Amino acid sequence: MNITEGPLEYLHAKIKPIGIFHTDAKKIPRHWTLSNVEGILTIEKEYALGLRDIKTSQRIIVIFLFHKSPGFTSEFLLQTPPHKKEGLGVFSICSPVRPNPIGMSVLEVLKIERRKIFVKGIDMLDGSPVLDIKPYVENKLNCPSCQE
Amino acid sequence: MNITEGPLEYLHAKIKPIGIFHTDAKKIPRHWTLSNVEGILTIEKEYALGLRDIKTSQRIIVIFLFHKSPGFTSEFLLQTPPHKKEGLGVFSICSPVRPNPIGMSVLEVLKIERRKIFVKGIDMLDGSPVLDIKPYVENKLNCPSCQE
Repeated sequence: MNITEGPLEYLHAKIKPIGIFHTDAKKIPRHWTLSNVEGILTIEKEYALGLRDIKTSQRIIVIFLFHKSPGFTSEFLLQTPPHKKEGLGVFSICSPVRPNPIGMSVLEVLKIERRKIFVKGIDMLDGSPVLDIKPYVENKLNCPSCQE
Repeated sequence: MNITEGPLEYLHAKIKPIGIFHTDAKKIPRHWTLSNVEGILTIEKEYALGLRDIKTSQRIIVIFLFHKSPGFTSEFLLQTPPHKKEGLGVFSICSPVRPNPIGMSVLEVLKIERRKIFVKGIDMLDGSPVLDIKPYVENKLNCPSCQE
């Protein structure tokens, strides 16, 4: 199977950060399910209109880059998380060291000021490039665009 | 703010698909919350060991590329979803036409055979490049790696 040529080229041509994440927090929780820490997503001007329907106190999914992670090698296929004794497969843990350094967090929106989204529950490092924001959808009843 | 130069270069160097998605389904549901359709994630050999701890009937988060989406332009900042009358900001809907064509679905694992993960609940097109698999975590109680 050779899947890399087409998609890689596609990625090269099309993907770029839509904004950047900032936090003053000195200590970043390991995962958003454990976090009350706050930060700000600043979105590039060209995408500002797309933020129009994000509301205070809703939850959003943020896709971002683990920009400080080391390059991935086969030694990271199994990793031993803190508080665990044995290694787990990388696709079963939330480690920032992954084949593709893409992170996903569910954050609470505190307020929005133009292109700045103030969020709570962060587990991202200051300076993380933001790739996408999606509505948090648990089921079809709360999806704004998917209701039949 | 100029954030694109560094991260873009980073993306160019580091991101490539880890596998590919296949389905025989003729009709693909619009969203995973509405889907019982099945498919198969085939992961590249070099990452197979990282699949070791994925279990039957668990849920996984799959990050993938909307590889058939048209390029994004400002006219897609507001889109009118089916069954809606008014346009919504792109960051509040699940449309595959996004500034970065990255999708995220929560899928149920039916079974695993070596590098093939049989999944249910798909909303991805046949041939979608897979970028990452993460454990589905609702809170710290069910995260294998994040428990304090």
